[in-house]
Amino acid sequence: MARVICIGLGPGDPDLMSVRAHRLLAGARIVAYFRKAGRPGQARRMVEGLIPEDAEEWPMEYPVTTEIPLGDPAYNAALAPFYADWAARLAAAPHDVIVLCEGDPFFYGSFMHLHSRLPRDQVEVVPGIPGMAGCWTATGQPITWGDDVLTVLPATLPQAELARRIRDTDALVAMKIGRNLPRLRAALAEAGRLQDAWLVEHGTMPAERVRPLAGVEGPVPYFSIVLVHGRGRRP
Amino acid sequence: MARVICIGLGPGDPDLMSVRAHRLLAGARIVAYFRKAGRPGQARRMVEGLIPEDAEEWPMEYPVTTEIPLGDPAYNAALAPFYADWAARLAAAPHDVIVLCEGDPFFYGSFMHLHSRLPRDQVEVVPGIPGMAGCWTATGQPITWGDDVLTVLPATLPQAELARRIRDTDALVAMKIGRNLPRLRAALAEAGRLQDAWLVEHGTMPAERVRPLAGVEGPVPYFSIVLVHGRGRRP
Repeated sequence: MARVICIGLGPGDPDLMSVRAHRLLAGARIVAYFRKAGRPGQARRMVEGLIPEDAEEWPMEYPVTTEIPLGDPAYNAALAPFYADWAARLAAAPHDVIVLCEGDPFFYGSFMHLHSRLPRDQVEVVPGIPGMAGCWTATGQPITWGDDVLTVLPATLPQAELARRIRDTDALVAMKIGRNLPRLRAALAEAGRLQDAWLVEHGTMPAERVRPLAGVEGPVPYFSIVLVHGRGRRP
Repeated sequence: MARVICIGLGPGDPDLMSVRAHRLLAGARIVAYFRKAGRPGQARRMVEGLIPEDAEEWPMEYPVTTEIPLGDPAYNAALAPFYADWAARLAAAPHDVIVLCEGDPFFYGSFMHLHSRLPRDQVEVVPGIPGMAGCWTATGQPITWGDDVLTVLPATLPQAELARRIRDTDALVAMKIGRNLPRLRAALAEAGRLQDAWLVEHGTMPAERVRPLAGVEGPVPYFSIVLVHGRGRRP
């Protein structure tokens, strides 16, 4: 029986992929990846030049992305059959399928929607460096040390909840930024941490940009990350 | 001027090191790593067979580890000159020095004590897969999805604080377990999450062991990790 192997690609720089992920890619006969219809897809772009020329590519194109709001029942109704269909196709593949995943597959990764639909003994996951680790390395400072508490939260949460959680942590990673930035910024200000916050766009990639958040104007990518470093809480 | 390059070795399995870390190791002329006096050291063990035979090894032996409690001022008094001395020696090395670090260097890594004492333009950090990512992959379930909040906390915190934070998060990673386990377990029970908690020892290594925490008796290693998976909070 062929296996389905999801490999974490890490934060963006292909050199930060694991030795194992790299070797699996180099020997791949079928490579599958999610993408928005008509786009090359970020995961696919990251492995440009690393896939064997004769490997089959199976782009898994989302039937819907931002056209339907995430909370709308129609969103899940559209995606559930899409994931079920692809899980069945991957499970029946004639050779091992290497599924690409940005960052780490089990850390907010879309692969979980296939994983939950595949037989446990047929699937394997290779961890990767999460995007946030590439981003905090780009700031040139440790994110946590000593007895720091780290909170990772999606910027999609309501402002009051964001502010409460930011006030209550030593170090912070906020994900899913994009149009949620104004609310996140207001929450950081409310919690008195705006001056300590950094915005990292395209961490570890050629377009990498690291800036103090307070001075940022204008739109930022959804996959940016906002960080506040811990200060080494002592026991 | 020679550089000081700290490479994250990842969670344990050398195959999970990044391609870049692997290449830096293979070309190393000087390799430095922390260890307890008289012990081989976990970081050094992870790269067995990967260092060139003619590379110099610079073990940096802690003058004190568990003999003095962490909160005691004597602990910092003993360690500060040790870090200062080694920072000076690394900065003056005749060739690039590759410093080994388990997991990711900027995520609770000891390298930060050297990093803060080295000239910024002489030092470089290569991120690695954090130990926790190796551990949650070992459980075979995603740690976070949807709009889950993840809290990472050291089990060294007081029980009431542990319980409060556990009650207030979707997903949990607890580090620095060892003799803090009874307090962490009590806090998990208090927060109603003990039945959801997993203990992972030696994640991604040959001795890997994954068990529900509730049934665990007896001592566990300091570098174990306790996990509670998120449940996919919806916006």
